Amino acid sequence: MPDLRTKGPGGLNLLTAVELSEKIAAGQTTSVAIVQDCLNRIKARDPDIRGWAYVDPDLALSQARACDAQPRRSPLHGIPIGIKDIFDTYDMPTAYGSAIYKGFQPTMDTALVGLMRRAGMVILGKCRTTEFASPVPVGVRNPHDFARSPGVSSSGSAAAVADFMVPLALGSQTGGSTILPAAFCGVVGYKSSLTGLDRGGVRHLRPTLDTMGLFARGIADIAALRSVLTGTNAAAPVKSLKDVRIGVCRTPSWDQAQPETVSALDTAARKLAAAGAKLHDAGMSSAFDGLAQSFNVISGVEGLRAMATEARDHLATMNHWIRDSLTAASKHDQETYDKAQLHAVQCQRATAGMFEHCDILITPSTAGEAIADVVSVSNSAFNRTWTLMGVPCVTIPAFEGLNGMPVGLQLVGPVGSDDHVLALSQAVADALK
Amino acid sequence: MPDLRTKGPGGLNLLTAVELSEKIAAGQTTSVAIVQDCLNRIKARDPDIRGWAYVDPDLALSQARACDAQPRRSPLHGIPIGIKDIFDTYDMPTAYGSAIYKGFQPTMDTALVGLMRRAGMVILGKCRTTEFASPVPVGVRNPHDFARSPGVSSSGSAAAVADFMVPLALGSQTGGSTILPAAFCGVVGYKSSLTGLDRGGVRHLRPTLDTMGLFARGIADIAALRSVLTGTNAAAPVKSLKDVRIGVCRTPSWDQAQPETVSALDTAARKLAAAGAKLHDAGMSSAFDGLAQSFNVISGVEGLRAMATEARDHLATMNHWIRDSLTAASKHDQETYDKAQLHAVQCQRATAGMFEHCDILITPSTAGEAIADVVSVSNSAFNRTWTLMGVPCVTIPAFEGLNGMPVGLQLVGPVGSDDHVLALSQAVADALK
Repeated sequence: MPDLRTKGPGGLNLLTAVELSEKIAAGQTTSVAIVQDCLNRIKARDPDIRGWAYVDPDLALSQARACDAQPRRSPLHGIPIGIKDIFDTYDMPTAYGSAIYKGFQPTMDTALVGLMRRAGMVILGKCRTTEFASPVPVGVRNPHDFARSPGVSSSGSAAAVADFMVPLALGSQTGGSTILPAAFCGVVGYKSSLTGLDRGGVRHLRPTLDTMGLFARGIADIAALRSVLTGTNAAAPVKSLKDVRIGVCRTPSWDQAQPETVSALDTAARKLAAAGAKLHDAGMSSAFDGLAQSFNVISGVEGLRAMATEARDHLATMNHWIRDSLTAASKHDQETYDKAQLHAVQCQRATAGMFEHCDILITPSTAGEAIADVVSVSNSAFNRTWTLMGVPCVTIPAFEGLNGMPVGLQLVGPVGSDDHVLALSQAVADALK
Repeated sequence: MPDLRTKGPGGLNLLTAVELSEKIAAGQTTSVAIVQDCLNRIKARDPDIRGWAYVDPDLALSQARACDAQPRRSPLHGIPIGIKDIFDTYDMPTAYGSAIYKGFQPTMDTALVGLMRRAGMVILGKCRTTEFASPVPVGVRNPHDFARSPGVSSSGSAAAVADFMVPLALGSQTGGSTILPAAFCGVVGYKSSLTGLDRGGVRHLRPTLDTMGLFARGIADIAALRSVLTGTNAAAPVKSLKDVRIGVCRTPSWDQAQPETVSALDTAARKLAAAGAKLHDAGMSSAFDGLAQSFNVISGVEGLRAMATEARDHLATMNHWIRDSLTAASKHDQETYDKAQLHAVQCQRATAGMFEHCDILITPSTAGEAIADVVSVSNSAFNRTWTLMGVPCVTIPAFEGLNGMPVGLQLVGPVGSDDHVLALSQAVADALK
């Protein structure tokens, strides 16, 4: 993989959030200087990558100036972040990727955005997303190869972080919308437990599916951001994998895994065993049969409720995937939905059972490296199940495909173990180097 | 205090959620039987208490029948709960206590409501709240004395649980809206860490203040419900207070404490010390000076953003407290708001420092027992600071005032320690018996 750092203006934007934070704390740089370098990079690279929906340089710099004038509020004081454009911001428009909401200006912040501001972070701008965070791409390009997909729906967030335009970004995942673009773009992606990062103020919410996600170029950055957003201390990084129990989970979708993913999982298992971890094959029981269909029912019905007015007034203008999904959902009765939820609950119990035998699962992040166009819907088979299970997931950019594109490894832990999964991820990443 | 159990129809509604759950699991009762007994109690008592905004007996019973026909989804499968009427429900109207939204039918569930349904709980109905959860009462009566206040804004939730109409209820707290009505009505109230219970789908959200709250008649019920809503296991109840470090925090509002509250805190300290706990006086540093004003700025500005369209179109029709609060907020510029948030962050650090010396604080739940009318605004001085700090709070109904009304003791822990605070609360409650 060519080094993206050399592809555009480099300066403070090349550093991670933790590195920047140390420099600010030591008085070696300012938020204004960091934001300026990020803006320079965006100006140079984003006309090609198209990762940003809204950037107002003056507004970003004025936030940075205010940060520089104030005492430090948190370890991420003065650090810029990009916000997926489905999250409301009181001072920047939010279009939800939709023509219906073009130029819409919310009056309030989504809770996570408000918490970032309270911590003294700089909201650099809004990252492009797909129409209502659906899986149909909208022309954001993968920084590693402009002819390839950056993944969806948090594609702008993933591309902006991968291309060193910003150290951190906020996304979300309903199917595979955080892990998939992070893996395609070669950055660290973290999808929280269903309720592990606050969802307050999120519009069009599918209450049992929509999950918050974070992007960064290092696990320490994710842990620091999560700590700021929850108000709690992050777990100390795990130093050794000795006797850590790791389940290798190929999932029922294994036949869809591309050669680079097969190879990545095999190599990871070998290296982790060499580092002292105790590995075993973690199969998924027959309880999971048909879960893809249950997922579709839940996603469809909750999506229809969440976008009821938009579906009523604008269905014909929405993309084919949304139209099909909402139309199919309108035919499901409450009993069908309840049955799908019962199935999901039974699988959640089975998932909890899998973690009696291991501390963490490793499993593919994606079917393979980024697909070779920017218009097709990517395969999120290796993500949807974990989203529905509500478990925390982390993708680490540890491998490379035949076409020189990044390939990720996905780590999955039990519900609520977000801090521990992040702490273990660092040790796994170290072992894979 | 007269026993409320004898004041109306008694049956399964007299049991706690945990007791009911055991009976259902053992096949000794059904969700339909439980819901029917709750409905009977509501029919008999609510014309006087006025705690419910919406109850459709057929809809509640049909949910219960569906639960009885299905495998158990969670430990609270088949258990009914009341929902404060600021939380959207796809199948029941939600008026936010406001004439503007009279009869409004949302299309989707608030996330917590959706999670309750997924766990197989029965949404019994909507509990009355004040206009946009403001502190101005709306005529709900305290079950212990109809001439006294049940507290606000989750007054319907607190009254319904206290009067054995339902074992559990969902509320929220921006100032003192969970702890205060729980204490006035003599039930257990739990206000989570700011992001400790999911806020997804909550309308009119003040992102750095609005916090979710739960009501029950026992701490075990709260712990069970929290576990269902977060997907994680509750901490085991603490059995002994030996060497538990407890800070007695009178707060800078101590001069407002009524004799019953002074006596409650003194008695609690004596009994907890006798149970082996290590007590000390936990003073609040001068960092907290002026925090009431910072609270008002934050609450006002975030409230104005959250209710922007309502304030623009309907300000003249809203109650005096909302009008005054939003009008004052409209005069604050961004710098004033940022300064207030900086003050809050500095106090959050000071609060974290207080917990270096103790595992938990005990502090008044309210200034005193329920005030002697149902129209005045109650004093939430002993709640607002903790809300702004984002810390978990529990009120235990352990004492009685001169007028025979319940008096609570408030337990406060560090951010994110919700499970531990609940586990300690049980031991504290036992020691106070």
